[in-house]
Amino acid sequence: MVWLHNTLRLLDQNSLQFPYNLQYIEATTPEAVITAIKEMSVRGAPAISLAGGYGLAIAAIKSKSKFSQEFFIEMTRVGTTFKSTRPTAVNLVNVIDRILTGLNPEMDIDQQKEYIIEEIKRIHAEEEATYRDLSRRGAELLTDHIKVLTHCNTGALATGTAYGTAIGIIQKAHQQSKIQHVYATETRPRLQGLKITAWELQQLQIPTTVIVEGAVGYVLANKEIDCILVGADRVLINEQPPYFVLNKVGTLPLAILAKYYKIPLIVAAPHSTFDHQKKLKHIEIELRNKREITHFQGFQIAPDNINTLNPAFDITPPDLITAIVTEKEIIYPAT
Amino acid sequence: MVWLHNTLRLLDQNSLQFPYNLQYIEATTPEAVITAIKEMSVRGAPAISLAGGYGLAIAAIKSKSKFSQEFFIEMTRVGTTFKSTRPTAVNLVNVIDRILTGLNPEMDIDQQKEYIIEEIKRIHAEEEATYRDLSRRGAELLTDHIKVLTHCNTGALATGTAYGTAIGIIQKAHQQSKIQHVYATETRPRLQGLKITAWELQQLQIPTTVIVEGAVGYVLANKEIDCILVGADRVLINEQPPYFVLNKVGTLPLAILAKYYKIPLIVAAPHSTFDHQKKLKHIEIELRNKREITHFQGFQIAPDNINTLNPAFDITPPDLITAIVTEKEIIYPAT
Repeated sequence: MVWLHNTLRLLDQNSLQFPYNLQYIEATTPEAVITAIKEMSVRGAPAISLAGGYGLAIAAIKSKSKFSQEFFIEMTRVGTTFKSTRPTAVNLVNVIDRILTGLNPEMDIDQQKEYIIEEIKRIHAEEEATYRDLSRRGAELLTDHIKVLTHCNTGALATGTAYGTAIGIIQKAHQQSKIQHVYATETRPRLQGLKITAWELQQLQIPTTVIVEGAVGYVLANKEIDCILVGADRVLINEQPPYFVLNKVGTLPLAILAKYYKIPLIVAAPHSTFDHQKKLKHIEIELRNKREITHFQGFQIAPDNINTLNPAFDITPPDLITAIVTEKEIIYPAT
Repeated sequence: MVWLHNTLRLLDQNSLQFPYNLQYIEATTPEAVITAIKEMSVRGAPAISLAGGYGLAIAAIKSKSKFSQEFFIEMTRVGTTFKSTRPTAVNLVNVIDRILTGLNPEMDIDQQKEYIIEEIKRIHAEEEATYRDLSRRGAELLTDHIKVLTHCNTGALATGTAYGTAIGIIQKAHQQSKIQHVYATETRPRLQGLKITAWELQQLQIPTTVIVEGAVGYVLANKEIDCILVGADRVLINEQPPYFVLNKVGTLPLAILAKYYKIPLIVAAPHSTFDHQKKLKHIEIELRNKREITHFQGFQIAPDNINTLNPAFDITPPDLITAIVTEKEIIYPAT
């Protein structure tokens, strides 16, 4: 994710040709950023939040408002639009709210614009430090020569920084020669594991094998996996007990299998994913488009008129989570 | 599956257009039947075994052998070829062995041919009774107004008869107005659940929702599922304890989730799937083609040169199985 000349440059992860021919989106309007988020050209809660912040900066630059107060109201309205583009990603809400909270309607328009641009750049720099710290801390938890299983994509593309979250830990552990092998689920329906995780780990020269989700039982039963590493879209702090983890659908089954096979489940979750307000009863799981299941790259593959249920996330209870690694500490929810 | 005029007529479940445009294979050579089995145009251990038996009948009809002994040896050889087309399906081995065991090299060639043809037709008729009985017996286990989750395809297409195994039980229970809803996994990598199960249940007018495998945790946690119903490719009787179940990869995770959520796991397994010889240590899980994961209907979807692991089956231990329903009895392996 690169911000240059008032333009947000994003690798288009939703391109049909990804990851063979890399295509980039050069977003110069807020609408282009919203589309990139909605269409999942940019993926992963942290990267989405940075994109949203830069989207707000683009809206500021392009604004035709003539009065400070008018500009301020426009930014609040655009921020609300950005916050509603993906319902589960709390990071996006936090970034937009942080920028808007610091915005002062009494400053003149140019000052407000400059503040918005500098604030998202400052947030981006802080994020770089966050994921570097999280990755280092997580890698310290791991012993030598281990085999890990991971789900969905949690790499550098998903954070918009040099390190990922769960994959950031794998990156760092690999630099320390600790990683023997990574098993990555393909992650239906959008195949982020097959397309993005496999590609990123390949770039990092980390030995990786892709499996279908159904094969996780086979792999855990036969391949002596040492730990399961996943990311988090949101961690509920205000629930009793705390630390319910919302993450890509398929995480909950992995957590239950981890418990059954007595394998640690490690969740990589920067504090930006911590939700101090909402409780379980407030959570509405995003149900995504049926076509993600019934169609494949434009082709219909299912019978006509079937019903599907396509939840984007599931919720893993704290008693199934061995450790949550943040940029600041390691939390042990199950104990 | 229809046998008429010395031709085996099979619905081609491997056709790209299945299940929109139904295409049929009219097999008039043993090679055509072998291809249909290998390419999974015919699927499901029972249907494969009937197809193999009819394939042997076609080989008998087409034989150019001139002497009884020569014919007998040819049939034994062709039988061996059929038995090796799919390594896990014990039913196919049983059907071929049953036909060959009854074959008498001292009978003249026409008598041997007639015997082979009549024997596979007899087996087919017995199979019709088997799946009808199994379905009725399984439906008796179910209470009213239930929601079930099923995996892969276990319908009438998979048995080559009027009833399926796990879906046979659902069919019969639906006739008794017991089924409120069926959740069916899409079943990667070949999508038998999305393409075949969804289609068969739609034909039967049974309310069905298709989910990705990753969503099984979400569905079990949120949808008040009353039981999980699956089929079996092989049940190991000669292991201690008995009743390890080999079935489509993804069954083992479902079994572990069923235990976690205290939901019964019911395996529909006719006696033809019972293996009285092999132990766990003799079992080699079929590892299928990488292209099933890296490609989709001819399109490459994965990065170049990635590794995959594509096991066709997994093994569920008996302590995770609430009941095994056969055509003759109900077995409770966990108790």
